[in-house]
Amino acid sequence: MARIAGSSGPRTEEAIRRAGLSLIATHGYAAMSLRQLAAEVGIQQGSLYNYFRNKQEFLFDLIRGHMLDLHAALDAALLAEGSAEARLTRFTEFHVAYHVARPQEVFICYSELRSLEPDNLAAVVAMRRDYERKLGDILDHGRATGEFRLADTRMATLAILAMLSGICTWYKPGGRLSTDGLQQIFTGMVLALAHGETQALAHGEMQGEVAEPVAVPVRRRGPLRAGVG
Amino acid sequence: MARIAGSSGPRTEEAIRRAGLSLIATHGYAAMSLRQLAAEVGIQQGSLYNYFRNKQEFLFDLIRGHMLDLHAALDAALLAEGSAEARLTRFTEFHVAYHVARPQEVFICYSELRSLEPDNLAAVVAMRRDYERKLGDILDHGRATGEFRLADTRMATLAILAMLSGICTWYKPGGRLSTDGLQQIFTGMVLALAHGETQALAHGEMQGEVAEPVAVPVRRRGPLRAGVG
Repeated sequence: MARIAGSSGPRTEEAIRRAGLSLIATHGYAAMSLRQLAAEVGIQQGSLYNYFRNKQEFLFDLIRGHMLDLHAALDAALLAEGSAEARLTRFTEFHVAYHVARPQEVFICYSELRSLEPDNLAAVVAMRRDYERKLGDILDHGRATGEFRLADTRMATLAILAMLSGICTWYKPGGRLSTDGLQQIFTGMVLALAHGETQALAHGEMQGEVAEPVAVPVRRRGPLRAGVG
Repeated sequence: MARIAGSSGPRTEEAIRRAGLSLIATHGYAAMSLRQLAAEVGIQQGSLYNYFRNKQEFLFDLIRGHMLDLHAALDAALLAEGSAEARLTRFTEFHVAYHVARPQEVFICYSELRSLEPDNLAAVVAMRRDYERKLGDILDHGRATGEFRLADTRMATLAILAMLSGICTWYKPGGRLSTDGLQQIFTGMVLALAHGETQALAHGEMQGEVAEPVAVPVRRRGPLRAGVG
């Protein structure tokens, strides 16, 4: 959030951000009132307007701020050179560690895209596309060098990001796996996926029975909740 | 939903279910009022109580109903015998086709777990565990027969489900990929993942540079939004 004027400073700003994240993650954006938010922080509702102009701007600032921090951290982490495998390993380790530390942000950046006004949504979707492109570039590079065998690097990009961000929905710090352990196991799976089925098939162990496709009727899709992707 | 008494029948029940799905997907459970729901269906608010006792029961019925249908459809689709690869292929094709046809249900079953009361949440989490176990059994079987090389079949289960359900967040029917195309590409990626890194490493193409782990500080986690997994 950009502090506008006369505020009591960055500590209040951070308290508003944390309280807003928690309220939106618990009740949803539409159900959160600015009165609740102010009460949670222990300030007058009017004081909130030192930090943002309205509730929509607050949500947008939360999501955009997360995306900006994410991009900056990724850019600092990515390998500038090296094999596609090394670069994909680095990307995966980064994405896992960054996101498991921010489950509320991840949840809101997914579930509340529906609540962004069109221009704000477009801006966030563009930032997501950029992030996806950074992974896509690694996969394209690996396919060009022959390290990776992927039928569709765009689908692989989306598959890998869903697989990794999904960790946030179940991971509990202090359980049987540390962040290091998660990174190791998920890097193994991501590399296996990227090395691809064709390569694995060359082993000659997998030409067994292939199941027939299941015919499940596809119903008309309801209203889109957000124009993602 | 179980119809309680004196209702105008299954057509109204289905209309309530569709309207509720759409309202919750758009605004969130906490922000949806039963007045809105009744207005959307074109009935008196009091008539809703022919179908459920309160808003919580409505949400629980929506989510439990989806899970029951999902289990029944999966049980009908799964191969009773065959190689682990064939069974995993069948599972993947089923999961993709079933879920891309129900994006609103998928969204709500994820985002509104937070809104379930403890007993209801426990019941839904148990049904999810059962579903996960059906995939986990296939992976365990494949590891036992040597078809799959997976460091951790529980993590692989969660990774595959996140990867496949994630399709619902971006897939638009009528785009460049049909459901068949999606099934084919994602089956390829799931099999590659299951065949595993160790097997791929045996190719001798991948002993190149390995990136150093990225040290990203992990912050204290905020309140859990739901006890999933």
